Amino acid sequence: MSLIVQKYGGTSVRDIERIRAVATRAAATRAAGNEVVVVVSAMSGETSRLLALAQELTPEPDQRECDVLASSGEQVTSALLAIALRSGGCPATSFQGHQIRIATDSAFGRARIKSIDTARIRAALADGQVVVVPGFQGVDPGGNVTTLGRGGSDTSAVALAAALEAAACEILTDVDGVYTSDPRICPRARKIDRISYDEMLELASLGTKVLQIRSVEFAKRYHVPIHVRSSFNDTQGTWVVEEESSMEDVEVSGVASDREAKVTVHRVPDQPGLAAAIFGPIADANISVDMIIQNVSADGMTDMTFTVPRSDLAQALRIVRATADTIGAGHVDATETVAKVSIVGLGMRSHAGVAARMFRTLADHRINIQMISTSEIKISIVIDDKFEELAVRALSDALVGTREEPA
Amino acid sequence: MSLIVQKYGGTSVRDIERIRAVATRAAATRAAGNEVVVVVSAMSGETSRLLALAQELTPEPDQRECDVLASSGEQVTSALLAIALRSGGCPATSFQGHQIRIATDSAFGRARIKSIDTARIRAALADGQVVVVPGFQGVDPGGNVTTLGRGGSDTSAVALAAALEAAACEILTDVDGVYTSDPRICPRARKIDRISYDEMLELASLGTKVLQIRSVEFAKRYHVPIHVRSSFNDTQGTWVVEEESSMEDVEVSGVASDREAKVTVHRVPDQPGLAAAIFGPIADANISVDMIIQNVSADGMTDMTFTVPRSDLAQALRIVRATADTIGAGHVDATETVAKVSIVGLGMRSHAGVAARMFRTLADHRINIQMISTSEIKISIVIDDKFEELAVRALSDALVGTREEPA
Repeated sequence: MSLIVQKYGGTSVRDIERIRAVATRAAATRAAGNEVVVVVSAMSGETSRLLALAQELTPEPDQRECDVLASSGEQVTSALLAIALRSGGCPATSFQGHQIRIATDSAFGRARIKSIDTARIRAALADGQVVVVPGFQGVDPGGNVTTLGRGGSDTSAVALAAALEAAACEILTDVDGVYTSDPRICPRARKIDRISYDEMLELASLGTKVLQIRSVEFAKRYHVPIHVRSSFNDTQGTWVVEEESSMEDVEVSGVASDREAKVTVHRVPDQPGLAAAIFGPIADANISVDMIIQNVSADGMTDMTFTVPRSDLAQALRIVRATADTIGAGHVDATETVAKVSIVGLGMRSHAGVAARMFRTLADHRINIQMISTSEIKISIVIDDKFEELAVRALSDALVGTREEPA
Repeated sequence: MSLIVQKYGGTSVRDIERIRAVATRAAATRAAGNEVVVVVSAMSGETSRLLALAQELTPEPDQRECDVLASSGEQVTSALLAIALRSGGCPATSFQGHQIRIATDSAFGRARIKSIDTARIRAALADGQVVVVPGFQGVDPGGNVTTLGRGGSDTSAVALAAALEAAACEILTDVDGVYTSDPRICPRARKIDRISYDEMLELASLGTKVLQIRSVEFAKRYHVPIHVRSSFNDTQGTWVVEEESSMEDVEVSGVASDREAKVTVHRVPDQPGLAAAIFGPIADANISVDMIIQNVSADGMTDMTFTVPRSDLAQALRIVRATADTIGAGHVDATETVAKVSIVGLGMRSHAGVAARMFRTLADHRINIQMISTSEIKISIVIDDKFEELAVRALSDALVGTREEPA
């Protein structure tokens, strides 16, 4: 008997018909001899609807109360799924975050899970129940309701799988798995059978929406195998697992892209502490800076370029322009029309020349590279966003290899 | 400084504008030098919307899970109201049922409050906060979410007022107070200034929707003065208080009516224990039986008639038919088209002939009486529901007296 944690996202529970289908699937997993814990998101659109009500009251609603508000969405789905399971003859019980003490810190809106009290879940499983848990929510040391931030239900599921030492954490979604690139952009994209945590982390951080990055970090730390698969069929999806020796045979396992905005501060005096002066205030405003490029200086001056989410550009510019005045830097300019395109693969570690082939492929398509940044298993470039689709397709065709599932 | 508990019903919080208005009123009550605890219902229609989702899944959804589902409605309102208060500069905090341990029994869907842990509320009040509490919900000894049944937010408010020894429990609603009869039926209905707990109990049990009956029981037991008033203006409403000597001057203070269903079990053997055999299983199914009539028997057989809420008729019939077979009773029949009309007044105790005048009034209007039941301060009759409005108007005009507010 295996213990399986299944997580269903908002589109998989978006109406009563879908919830019934989820119940059927969870009950079948139990009938096949498994212990089953199901983690559910809010019905799609519900979290946004609730937070829009708060926004109607005030542009900056109190975060503690927003967590009370938003967590109700998952609470509703968990109760409905338990009702659906029971009405189909499958014993089931929902447990809210305060009932199984999904203990988090007190960072309302983006809390982190510290521990989960599994005693009550284990007792219910031993009693033959399917246990239904609302994702996204927890309680802090003071008993206040907290939420984990958008996409937090993935993290809830992986954390539960870790705490229960589950055989697998299934992430059931509206796609078949993780693809070598976005199938909407690249029709020849292929489903990846197995991928390492590190590769998945890079892909998640690069804008692949299929898994929330914190859930992958959690899975890696606690060795939880994740199975990303479709909630609409039984075909195998993508396993996210520990690195396997054969994985390095493939140089590039995926291509990801994301639209961003780029900011350049010109003629920054090349002195210690100025990078901190520029990025400190941006971090304080909770704007996440992605790529940062600083090249060697000339005449004691250097240019500093970085990318931010487009929605944060206006605020970032305001902050950076104030800083530039203070530190005696030159003018600040920005463009909203850039895209970051990245290739990811464990094989890059051992295969030379991947970067060269990437740049050659882009040159062949007359795509100008504005910025370059690399890590051990990733190369990211920033280009004009009108070339985004062309670049993704060209790089997929030229570089992405296939990885056979090990026997 | 007084401690005031204010309860706002679903129509008073039905949209963002109304929630803002509630925040303004609660903040003004605090600004006037009071400590304020606000109890809120779900936004109007929300509880029904949620339970309809469960009904879509199955006609008899699991009750424990329905409580998890339905309690989310009040949770949402409590968070929104706290956000509204804070955005208007009034310190406020919401506490859910599990955070202040509104301890109930485990009768899901109709739980009874046992105790409330007021320490956290008192600390927040001492800190200058308006405390917002979702009505209708609690937790049982196992930490499961419970609800108090429809209208339970009134009970939550009175229970909080009792636990906190509040100066008053204000029930803010969309009517000006308690009327001598339903103004929609009877245009000459008048607002009652002061009414005793016992009269209010009878009126509430008779279908007057303005206060939930259990909240009145609670208020009577713990001597909590209730002030039923409009949430839209500042005029005095109806005070529900201890009995005052002048109250007996009025024979009939109110007329109430309610639509019910009637079940008759024919030819029940007239033996000890058979009433228990019939009503035990109905009680076990948590169906509340209202009137029960058993007349003297003939030939060792008797007929037994009772009324139930229309929504429970199908289930009650199924249960009673099974019982009738077991105990060798005759056939069971039922009608859904009856109304109960009642007159209530402390003055009935000391004034003779009220019943005779009631029956004479009905006879004058050619309304046939199907059942009669009386208590010390109430007379109820069951009639065909097509005569409901006529009976209420006729009895109001003929019998209801006025009560002046004591100087």
